[in-house]
Order: sequence, then C-alpha cells, then structure tokens
Amino acid sequence: MAKKVPHRLYLTEDQMPKQWYNLRADMKIKPDPLLNPATFKPVNIEELYPVFCKALAAQEMDNTTRYIDIPEEIQDFYKMYRPSPLIRAYNLEKALKTPAKIYYKYEGNNTSGSHKLNSAIAQAYYAKEQGLTGLTTETGAGQWGTALAEACAFYNLDLTVYMVKVSYEQKPFRKTVMETFDAKVIPSPSNTTKVGKAILENDPNTGGSLGCAISEAIEKAVSTPGYRYVLGSVLNQVVLHQSIIGLESKIAMELLDEYPDVVIGCAGGGSNLGGLIAPFMQDKLTGKATPRIVAVEPASCPSFTRGKYAYDFCDTGRVTPLAKMYTLGASFMPSANHAGGLRYHGMSPILSRLYHDGFMEAVAVEQTKVFEAAVLFAKQETILPAPESAHAIRAAIDEAILCRETGEAKTILFGLTGTGYFDMTAYNSYLTNTMKDYVPTDEDLQKGFDQLPRVDING
Amino acid sequence: MAKKVPHRLYLTEDQMPKQWYNLRADMKIKPDPLLNPATFKPVNIEELYPVFCKALAAQEMDNTTRYIDIPEEIQDFYKMYRPSPLIRAYNLEKALKTPAKIYYKYEGNNTSGSHKLNSAIAQAYYAKEQGLTGLTTETGAGQWGTALAEACAFYNLDLTVYMVKVSYEQKPFRKTVMETFDAKVIPSPSNTTKVGKAILENDPNTGGSLGCAISEAIEKAVSTPGYRYVLGSVLNQVVLHQSIIGLESKIAMELLDEYPDVVIGCAGGGSNLGGLIAPFMQDKLTGKATPRIVAVEPASCPSFTRGKYAYDFCDTGRVTPLAKMYTLGASFMPSANHAGGLRYHGMSPILSRLYHDGFMEAVAVEQTKVFEAAVLFAKQETILPAPESAHAIRAAIDEAILCRETGEAKTILFGLTGTGYFDMTAYNSYLTNTMKDYVPTDEDLQKGFDQLPRVDING
Repeated sequence: MAKKVPHRLYLTEDQMPKQWYNLRADMKIKPDPLLNPATFKPVNIEELYPVFCKALAAQEMDNTTRYIDIPEEIQDFYKMYRPSPLIRAYNLEKALKTPAKIYYKYEGNNTSGSHKLNSAIAQAYYAKEQGLTGLTTETGAGQWGTALAEACAFYNLDLTVYMVKVSYEQKPFRKTVMETFDAKVIPSPSNTTKVGKAILENDPNTGGSLGCAISEAIEKAVSTPGYRYVLGSVLNQVVLHQSIIGLESKIAMELLDEYPDVVIGCAGGGSNLGGLIAPFMQDKLTGKATPRIVAVEPASCPSFTRGKYAYDFCDTGRVTPLAKMYTLGASFMPSANHAGGLRYHGMSPILSRLYHDGFMEAVAVEQTKVFEAAVLFAKQETILPAPESAHAIRAAIDEAILCRETGEAKTILFGLTGTGYFDMTAYNSYLTNTMKDYVPTDEDLQKGFDQLPRVDING
Repeated sequence: MAKKVPHRLYLTEDQMPKQWYNLRADMKIKPDPLLNPATFKPVNIEELYPVFCKALAAQEMDNTTRYIDIPEEIQDFYKMYRPSPLIRAYNLEKALKTPAKIYYKYEGNNTSGSHKLNSAIAQAYYAKEQGLTGLTTETGAGQWGTALAEACAFYNLDLTVYMVKVSYEQKPFRKTVMETFDAKVIPSPSNTTKVGKAILENDPNTGGSLGCAISEAIEKAVSTPGYRYVLGSVLNQVVLHQSIIGLESKIAMELLDEYPDVVIGCAGGGSNLGGLIAPFMQDKLTGKATPRIVAVEPASCPSFTRGKYAYDFCDTGRVTPLAKMYTLGASFMPSANHAGGLRYHGMSPILSRLYHDGFMEAVAVEQTKVFEAAVLFAKQETILPAPESAHAIRAAIDEAILCRETGEAKTILFGLTGTGYFDMTAYNSYLTNTMKDYVPTDEDLQKGFDQLPRVDING
C-alpha cells in the first residue's frame, strides 16, 4: 500500500546523495573506448589532458568505480538549488482520466532553466582545483552555456562560449543571461578560430551546428594557456554527474514506497536521460528490477531510432576523439524548423551501448505532437516546459493514455528537464499553426552515414 | 542557539498554512473606506458586485476577521508550486563579508515567475464558484497577466488581459506565454473600450499605463455578461491572499529558531510587501515583537517616500472607487527608461495606513544601483532576479554592509518575488552601461498632485 503522496516531495539536505553513481561499473559489456583521431587507437588518459582537466579525464576513463564521492564544495553548491522536487502530476492524471500514477522529476528551478547546472558546477570545480584560469564550451539552445556561465562566475573562471549562430540570432536574451554571469559569447562559426574560418569560407551563410561549435571551442581551449574545454552532454563524466537526478528520484520514490514501471527521458546527447535512469538501470543490470526505460527523441534528429551504431567524431571539424555511439554522422544538420535542443548528431556512448544491448527502448516523436503535449501539461501542472522536456511529456502522456485503455495503474516516472521561457518563438509558431514537422528521408540520412570514418580498431 | 540552517528550507504539506491572515483585524486604526466615485461616500458591498465577485467583495470589506480559511481546492493548487523555499544566502553573506544572517523567501519558481499566482488562483476560484464565465484584468510587466492566465486555464474561465502597450511591444514573449494558457491579450490603450478610444484620441502615440489598462479592463468586465474584473495588487483581498508568503516564512523561521530583525520587501502596489510582512507586522501591532519593516521602491516611482497620503482613483479613467493611499496622482506616468514593474501611481491602502502610522519605513533606490545588486546576487546565489525583486536585494545588501561596519549579526529577511527571464533587455542596458537613472523633480510630481480629487468624506 503506497503512502499518501504529496504533490511535491523535496528531500532534506541529509537525504541528498553524497556520491555520484557510475553506470559503467555495473555494465557487463562496457562502452567501447574513445579512439585517438590521428591513430584510431584507443586513447590513453594523458592524451586527454590537453583538452580536459585531469580529474575529469579520470572520470571519463573510469569504467569500474561504482560510486564516486561528490566533493563537499559541489554538494554545497547543489544545496543552493537542489534537491529538485519529485512531483506527482495529480492534475495531469485527472485530465487524462488515467489510472496511471505519473511522477516527474523537475530540474528547471534554477537560472540555467535545466539540469545542466549539475554537471557545469562539477566541471568548473575540478578546473578551479587544477589551477586553470578559463574554460571554453559550445552551446546550442543555451541551457548549457547559461549553466556553465553560472558555475564559472561562482569560481571566477573565464569562460568563452561558442553559441550556434542560428541560436545566437534567435535567442539574444540567452546571450544576455550568459553575459550577466561574465561569459564571453561568440556566434559560431566565427573567425576567431581556424576551423571556424574554414567553415565560413566554405559556407558564409551557415547557421552553424553544435558539431562545429565544439570544434571551435576545442581549438580555443588547446591554444590558450590555462584553458581547458568542457562539454555538457554525451561524455561519460557528464552522465556520471547527472546521476544525481536519478539518485534523488529513487530515494524520493522509496520514501513513498513507489517504484516506476517505466522511466521516460528525452534524449539529445544523453545527459538528462543517462542521469535520470542511472539507478533504475542499475537495478535492471543487476537483476533487482525490470523497469522499462524509454528514450524519447525528435523525429527530426533520430540518432537512436534511425542512426548507425558506429565510431564517429563528436564534432564537425573532426578534431575530437572518436566515440562508438548511435550517430547520424558528424555532418548531420537538423532541419531549420527544428525547435529547441536535442539536435546533436550523436548519443552518449554509455546509453548507446545499453540501447544496443537491449536494456532500453527508444521512440521518435514529431514536434507538433510534442508542443500539443507541452500545452496540455502547462495548463494542468502550471509549468511551461522546455521543448526538449516536452518530448518526455509526450511519451508519458501516451503511456498514461494506454493505461486508460488497458485499465493498468502503472507507475510512470519522467524527467522534466527544464522550462521553456526562452523558447516562446517556438510556442508562438505552434499556437499560430505555423509549426511544421520534418522527418528526414533515408536518402537525407545516408549522406551523413557516407561520411562516417572507416574504423577497424583491431586493424 | 540557532539550529543548523539548511540552504533551502521547504515546509512539508502538513506544515503549510490552511488560513490566510487578515492584517486589518489587528490594526487599531483601520484603512479608510473606499469611496463611491460618483458620490464620494463610502461604498457598500453591493456597489462592488458589478465589478468584483461576491466572495472577493466580502474579503475586500472585511476589517475584522483575523484568519480566513483557504478553500481546499486552492490549498491543492498551492501544493502544485508551493511551499516556496526559505533560503539562507550563505554565499551572498560570504561575498559581503557580513556578520548578518540573510534569508530570502523565493517566490519565482512557477511559470508566472513571481508571487502573483498566490492571488490569481484564489480570484479565479471564487469567480468559478460564483458561476462566472470570464475575467478581465490589466498587466504591466506581465507577471500578473501570466499568473491569471494560468489560473483561468486551470478553471476554464475566459480571460482578457489589457497589457500596457509599451510592455506589449517590448515583451512579445510574455504575450505568448499568456496565449499558451488561452488568454486574449490586447495592447492598452485599445479601441475595444470607450475609455481606451478616448485616451487614444487624446494621445495616439501613448505607450499606455497601468491606470489606463485598469480602466479598460473594468469597462470590458462590467459590459460583458458573466464577467468580472480582477486586480493583482493594491486591493485588501490581494494582500490577504499574499499573506501565505509571510505565514510560510514565519513558520520556516520558527523551525530554525530564528526571527528577523528586519523584513524587507519591494513595493509597487504592495501585494508582495503586504503578504511578506503580514505575520511580522501582526507581532508589531500586538506588541509581541519589534522587527523593522522596510518597503523599497524605485526612485522613479516614489509613492511612499514622495507621494501624498490622500484619496485618489485607482485608475487613469477615474471609474474605480477612490482609495485613501500614498499616491503620485492617477495621471502619473513613470519615465520611459524605468525598467520592470513597480510603476503604479498608488499603494495598498493597508500598507499606506501602516506607513502613515509609523509601523514601517520606506526607502527609494535608483535603478542602476538595483541592477548592480541584481548581478552580484545572481553570481553568488545562482538566481537571476526580477528587477522588482532586486529592489529588495539592494536594500538587504545595504543593510548587510552596515552590519559589517557595526559588527552586528542581524537577521535579515527579504522577499525575492521572482525571476528576470523576461527582463533581459533591461539587464542588457545595465551591462552595456546605457541604463539611465531618473528621479522626478518636485515640479513633475506636483502635476500629479494637482489632479488629485478634492474629497471631504465628512462633507
């Protein structure tokens, strides 16, 4: 018999996790190693040092340590905006007339408007600890850039953000938020880097892409003394830091005597999804429970559902190590009418491995259906969701409707990664019926696959 | 000896207040009555019915009931986004090197981005209960309109929002948020009302004002069957609903064995200030404690510090009842470079009475100093504050700096009413050093005073 469930459950500070959980420790088949882009051989840790600070390079390579202590300073910073609430969607359930119990973990209550701050503060902390003076990164929709700007302002680190040009132009307010936290924001591609200049020469009118902004940020980092590069998703270290989301969720559900039948998260590079599902996936990997785990991605950027599981570069400029992941090819650009984030060509190597090995499902949804769900959710639950988060809402609603039809009272948990305050142009296009869906053809996708690097790591 | 204080304290649902507190019950000298604008005699409750729904008219007139039950449906709605956290500003204290303990009550974690939802849901609930079909209101900066749109969407009530034209044009995203919740948003003055047409004829290029938007919203309400008018500040009923802020704050501080030496709130129409201070003012009125209570207003719209305590209209069109309050005159328009809200010509009659009788202090601050405080706060506490809220931050910081100089370890409580996500134009003007301060001259203010109605209620 489940306990009386409050609308919002906040853990106390004493109940908050003091360690991150490293999913890789419980994976029998580990993610494939990163490869050096010059030699196509597995990288060793020293090869990562020019790009990543040492502690983060170690976390990136660590396939075995199950729990990693969260440094006390990071715990203290977390306490400024965490714990995030686990919310029971009573009103959404009522509106859907579903017997399902819907819970969501809400990460939007901080100025970055998303879960990104969980990893940003960790990455800034380790950089400061190593005595670095600055960081570089890329941002698309802007949440990651904002989160990192907050973290760098806190630690007095310089920050240069390469912002995908089309976002830079569409979202000037995001830029101002980052500047409020002293970040330097540069539209990408730019003429501040060789790789940016080359891309601009090739296509002066390009709106840019995350892959391209990554190339520029790395070039800037490795060419500036005391600087390193940081990334807000995809990487193993990021999934590790984001495990705080899932760990808090699981503790909160335990306090309620609840356990999810299905865990649903939106999937771009995998940072939120990997964090949310971590302890539930652990139960699955260790045979303790069998929750369904569902990744939801945009039909316009379908890396899980239509990508290849292959080695690929993480950036357009092909300067990063190669990762084995579901990918649409590093040259993939989502359609111009794609709203919000979830536009990266690849996917977390950890999640890619788990998906490949059958531990999780994936669905792709079209954006008008996503915004329909977003508006329904907003009216019932009073939170205006980010377009990214609304992908998970869409799948959770579909699951709850299925429960209404079958009469099953499933327990659904989904991740509400953030708020949509900087996405009102997209909402307006949905409300005025000018939003279009876009699904790439097989031919569109084949162009990306044709450019995948030919890698034989045993060769 | 104070207990160990967490960064954020959330009450549990069981600890949340189940009644609002009505400050008037403990005031020996009550606020003066509203006057009928035609007769200049005190209004009776029936005269309010064409404008306000009955339950709210009763709350407006009730000077004696100390505690009023919060209907269960409203309590349930509150649980979707409340309790709001009481936060200890550890990092701000450290940055200021102050011995003071700084607490703030943060009301920004809901889609309206402010405390306004506390009264919006109450007003929508009573309208629904009375069988009304729609509401009208005005909004300036947009928080109130957004909050009411959320509340009306929840109760399936029509909503027409008259949005001050200059805000409508500067903040298109605010409009889209309201539209997401099905509100109809009209820039004011408009040609949808007689009063709007008259104002436009007089000055076709006017940017509008709150006072003018109020006139239009009332005209629309009284001329549409099944509609009533609602207001987000100034009124006694609003201060009543907002007492939830102060009541939660006081319970949370009691759990920490704390009591504020000084309570600081920003002051526009008085909704947040009146709510935050309510239970602390009760202690002061009943002789139980003597906290200092400080209102902070913009130097560009200084109703407390430079206004007259006099009967005045609540709107430009002079259709509302008259209220005895601190006022700059219903024709007052703040300077065009005034950023954010806190731009109303008058002030809550309850707060006006208390200020007049010496129970509280008021200070006026200039906006560049306000944004300086906002940016410092954002970097230390990771929350990007609304310009309105930053007025309170400014005064709290000044108080804490004074403590550093005197060595006193005062306990400071201030209200952080909301977030600044829709105010990035103002932040940008601060960051690029193009923001200007503006202080009206005595001659400027005299023009407003000259138009005050000549009222002698004993005549």
